[in-house]
Amino acid sequence: MSQKTILIAGLGLIGGSLARAIKLGHTDYHVSAYNRSQAPRDFAIQEKIVDEVSDDFAALAVKADVIILNFPVQLSIDFLKKLATLPLKENVLISDSGSTKTEIVAAAETIFAGKSARFIGGHPMAGSHKTGVIASDELLFENAYYILTPSTLSEPKDLAELKDILSNTRAKFVELSPKDHDAMTAVTSHFPHVVAASLVNNAHDFAQLMPFTENLAAGGFRDMTRIAESSPDMWAEILMSNPDNIIYQIDQFSQKLAQIKQLIVQRQSAEIWDFFDQARKLRSLMPIHKGALENFYDLFISVPDKSDVIHEVLGYFAGHNLSIINIKINETRVEINGVLQITFKTEQDQKTAEHLIKENSDYDVYK
Amino acid sequence: MSQKTILIAGLGLIGGSLARAIKLGHTDYHVSAYNRSQAPRDFAIQEKIVDEVSDDFAALAVKADVIILNFPVQLSIDFLKKLATLPLKENVLISDSGSTKTEIVAAAETIFAGKSARFIGGHPMAGSHKTGVIASDELLFENAYYILTPSTLSEPKDLAELKDILSNTRAKFVELSPKDHDAMTAVTSHFPHVVAASLVNNAHDFAQLMPFTENLAAGGFRDMTRIAESSPDMWAEILMSNPDNIIYQIDQFSQKLAQIKQLIVQRQSAEIWDFFDQARKLRSLMPIHKGALENFYDLFISVPDKSDVIHEVLGYFAGHNLSIINIKINETRVEINGVLQITFKTEQDQKTAEHLIKENSDYDVYK
Repeated sequence: MSQKTILIAGLGLIGGSLARAIKLGHTDYHVSAYNRSQAPRDFAIQEKIVDEVSDDFAALAVKADVIILNFPVQLSIDFLKKLATLPLKENVLISDSGSTKTEIVAAAETIFAGKSARFIGGHPMAGSHKTGVIASDELLFENAYYILTPSTLSEPKDLAELKDILSNTRAKFVELSPKDHDAMTAVTSHFPHVVAASLVNNAHDFAQLMPFTENLAAGGFRDMTRIAESSPDMWAEILMSNPDNIIYQIDQFSQKLAQIKQLIVQRQSAEIWDFFDQARKLRSLMPIHKGALENFYDLFISVPDKSDVIHEVLGYFAGHNLSIINIKINETRVEINGVLQITFKTEQDQKTAEHLIKENSDYDVYK
Repeated sequence: MSQKTILIAGLGLIGGSLARAIKLGHTDYHVSAYNRSQAPRDFAIQEKIVDEVSDDFAALAVKADVIILNFPVQLSIDFLKKLATLPLKENVLISDSGSTKTEIVAAAETIFAGKSARFIGGHPMAGSHKTGVIASDELLFENAYYILTPSTLSEPKDLAELKDILSNTRAKFVELSPKDHDAMTAVTSHFPHVVAASLVNNAHDFAQLMPFTENLAAGGFRDMTRIAESSPDMWAEILMSNPDNIIYQIDQFSQKLAQIKQLIVQRQSAEIWDFFDQARKLRSLMPIHKGALENFYDLFISVPDKSDVIHEVLGYFAGHNLSIINIKINETRVEINGVLQITFKTEQDQKTAEHLIKENSDYDVYK
């Protein structure tokens, strides 16, 4: 394995986590990082996340064997244009981590046509509610899908090379065409964000008529609108970068709503039952249940709403070396889940905990 | 407080939980239960959830001072019709626990017009993954909204009486007109169920074209479609029982989707940003956050990455009656201490906790 210089451009959550994972897997690599603002650079050097930092993109870029751009798509395209003007290393391998792929791959193919640079689009599909390099984590992408989109500027061996560089992300690499990536993420992510935001705006409009409405917004509504608090910068950009697929989903979905409306208008209860039954069956078969992006194991424990009950329950686990990721009290009973929710890192810990609770208390436990 | 005979008709999760709460608060009451099938009756007697069970509805009904119907709305209306043919006690108080209120209140007002029976619609807004009397829990409704809808068959004192009977549910009672209840729950619950089921059916249709789509359905999509696995029986019935409000929501929402589609078609990125920003701001202001993870008072405690450290820290809080909302271990790292994040409901609890940790350990604590 030859020593390489890797430039991480953009030191946020994604860039920082990629840098950590690359260093961890390839201690012989020289990892440099470009970031415009200083604080993330200082943090990254201090924490030894990278070997070198600078706000001079060109100076780092010309020394790099591999460049990974971690910006919104439009900004990454601007950086591609800058790169095309620089005396880059022969056969430099360029990738990105943006949420859409068609636009940037097309831009790269135009910008680098006839040049020796190689380009592979990338989309590591993981995130956190935390942001910034301070929250970066070499395990952020573990078990997450990491989509790689080849281009006319790449060959199979280039993909193998990039996967090797990124191997310690422990992500599941999947090759997709940029078009397929954008069509599928429109269905599973981009359009659902439009729906979540619309549900919130819709409820708010209605609450102008009946203010108590907002008090009843809990349980399912809460789950369905959580992502409506995502960054408007990011989501406006994604919509602008994947317009046709999202428009297609809006049309498809609006048709579905029109169909169910007709069923209600015509009081076709059997068909309405089928509609819900189909959804229930389909969802139960979706790989969604395996935790495609999150390998966490939840236990729900029905406990009385009393002080120190978490301490009591954790006491049952004492000495059993269980790895707990998260503990949540679902305070209002409007939640469909039980009251105390404990998230374990492994299925084995989940099982052991279930056993310990049943052995030591008469609380109901379910998964 | 006079001794009363309460008939719980329908011994499922809701009926069983109501029976438990009523007995708990009024040990002098005689609580009877009607259920068609035998197993729930046997369980309820065995577990002393109720004092008497029977599959003879009429026999129990004529002895009851209060009757609470726990069935799907149509079935409850059938039971109201049966009740109207029986020699009920003078001024019997009848209620229900169905998900919609306009239809049943209108039915009651017609069926009992000119009779001495009193009727108040009820909707305890709580649920569980589990079903059946076996999962019943006197705490099921604690802190949940319990909507009461007066009718022409009730007076304010009747509401006070019903609230007293139900006081040990520890629910938050709210009076709403049946129409307002159904209009608001259409926004926050019924229509979102239609959306969740449509999202699943939509993704499945698209996966016929691109099968890998289902693998990408995670994160936000998972949250948004969780309720699509609810009972089709229940949701088909709710749609049929609240058609106009749900149709109105479908129309409103379809208009919103058409608007955002136009913004995308016309590449109006500033307006798209506003759309997401509005949703983000509105949601952050919704009372949905009470008891949720998203805000309140955090303490971050630098703890060693060892098993049982959460139990140890919570031990310092024992007896201090602190209200903890959430506990999380932020990625423990080899070189750094793990950071334990504990979220409190009040600033006072946060302060007390900080003090207790500093008093009992040498862990660094910050806010």
